[in-house]
Amino acid sequence: MAFELTVLGSSSAIPTTSRFPTAQVLNVHERFFLLDCGEGTQIQLRRFSINMSRISHIFISHLHGDHVFGLFGLLSSYNLMGRKADMHIYAHRDFEPTLEHFRKHFGMDMSFDIVFHPFTAVKQMEIYSDKHLTVEIIPLRHSVPVVGFLFREKKMMLNMRREAIEKYALGIKEIRNIKTGLDYITPDGHVIPNAELTLPPYKTRSYAFCTDTLCFSKLNTVLRDVDLLYFEATFSAKDKKLAKLTGHSTSEQAAMLAKQANAGRLLIGHFSTRYKSIAPLLKEARAVFPNTEAVADGDKFSIDPERIESGS
Amino acid sequence: MAFELTVLGSSSAIPTTSRFPTAQVLNVHERFFLLDCGEGTQIQLRRFSINMSRISHIFISHLHGDHVFGLFGLLSSYNLMGRKADMHIYAHRDFEPTLEHFRKHFGMDMSFDIVFHPFTAVKQMEIYSDKHLTVEIIPLRHSVPVVGFLFREKKMMLNMRREAIEKYALGIKEIRNIKTGLDYITPDGHVIPNAELTLPPYKTRSYAFCTDTLCFSKLNTVLRDVDLLYFEATFSAKDKKLAKLTGHSTSEQAAMLAKQANAGRLLIGHFSTRYKSIAPLLKEARAVFPNTEAVADGDKFSIDPERIESGS
Repeated sequence: MAFELTVLGSSSAIPTTSRFPTAQVLNVHERFFLLDCGEGTQIQLRRFSINMSRISHIFISHLHGDHVFGLFGLLSSYNLMGRKADMHIYAHRDFEPTLEHFRKHFGMDMSFDIVFHPFTAVKQMEIYSDKHLTVEIIPLRHSVPVVGFLFREKKMMLNMRREAIEKYALGIKEIRNIKTGLDYITPDGHVIPNAELTLPPYKTRSYAFCTDTLCFSKLNTVLRDVDLLYFEATFSAKDKKLAKLTGHSTSEQAAMLAKQANAGRLLIGHFSTRYKSIAPLLKEARAVFPNTEAVADGDKFSIDPERIESGS
Repeated sequence: MAFELTVLGSSSAIPTTSRFPTAQVLNVHERFFLLDCGEGTQIQLRRFSINMSRISHIFISHLHGDHVFGLFGLLSSYNLMGRKADMHIYAHRDFEPTLEHFRKHFGMDMSFDIVFHPFTAVKQMEIYSDKHLTVEIIPLRHSVPVVGFLFREKKMMLNMRREAIEKYALGIKEIRNIKTGLDYITPDGHVIPNAELTLPPYKTRSYAFCTDTLCFSKLNTVLRDVDLLYFEATFSAKDKKLAKLTGHSTSEQAAMLAKQANAGRLLIGHFSTRYKSIAPLLKEARAVFPNTEAVADGDKFSIDPERIESGS
């Protein structure tokens, strides 16, 4: 039931000794999804004790080096470690020549297959779905095509109340039906409401990863009610013009977006190396949206499973 | 007068949290030469306080990812920092398509020019020369074409003895001649031997960087009398068969080479991650060649300038 984010890199384009370029891992029910893959990602995975073999899906937001240059080393190490499982890579279709170049010049006789899932960054759409979640791309605005990734947990099957199984002597077929939300009709025709038979359902959880981009008003609705929002804050409010010029956002803009979208919690990162301290960036964000954190490499953020209270 | 090596990465193909992939910097008279460029090199340069802007020459031993995947991020960062000076890259000619791919897909509008100096790995030859040193490539033996790099300091101009200038009232022209090693003939025909006019000359210093390779006997003569020798020791002597199979060397083989070549000091590195401790590798090397060090990321090794004693 995990829903946990680990930040691997939180710098903007130029890394520092404490902040690597962008990469994150999202663990959803013990499936690990890699978001961007800046240089040094494989080292950070080891440093923060992520089991590398659990990753089978890599999502690349855009084709700037600080979001992708760690991919070649990571794939090479998987090969040296004898990986067998397919690796699925989701990226803009323009990434195909680079993947092909890597395969031809550095990836001969790979022990595993790379499955490429190209997309364009034109419209919001689902690009991945499994038992537990869906992933949508959200077109963003930068100097090259860029998307955000929106992870939404699917509604889970209901859990039975153990005492109900005994009380009504329920069989496998009835339990299966009840778990989908149906009421139970007893042999003598009584209707037992589903809520009496099952535990309150879990709230579904969501995470949005948005970097590198300008802030624009359409995002208020696209990101509506997201539980956890990572939004780039390359610049401080005082450097708003520079943010616009370079296709980036300020921490204040990120916070205004989180507020207007009614996000649960905001994470800011991708900080420009021009700021010796990011405390002022965090302060200006919290003035607008108090539930904000400035991420650091190695930080983990979890959303615990929470049952919907009866009556709500 | 510096002649100093800084180790940036000392792991073999798979990095660890404490050992990055291969990269080193050699400072010769305040010119900085980058040797190989594994993933994370730009981070290590910052961590170990190397002034990145001083590097204008990058030498790549061979085209395996762990020796080259840091190059793209490094070049991108130079671009973001507004570098103007040419960057000279020396690598096997097969690297050209990769450089071209990088330029086309990730390096548009670079602020500086990349000058590529291709070589083949067929015979020993000089590929670089400046006022202070020459660099030769040495063909090595691995699964792909690979070379070692041999840095040799050039003989320096002699330094004048200050008292001689006054005693013989020497002019600029005479001093220039004496500094090249000529004797001085006084106006009345006396020959003053050069050794009376100048300080004893400095010994020239040399460094050889050899990875990834098998050990073979020809290297005993090629590396004859080198002052500082970095030689890969991916494996321990007990894994000698594996070393041969994978085109690598053991620490014992590296030490035997150092001994037979009469090297001044041996550095071993490029350790396989299979060894939890590299103490046994160092021990077996020192049993053969006592003046051996097992390098770690951040280690520095200097050769101090030393005057040739008179009479020697």
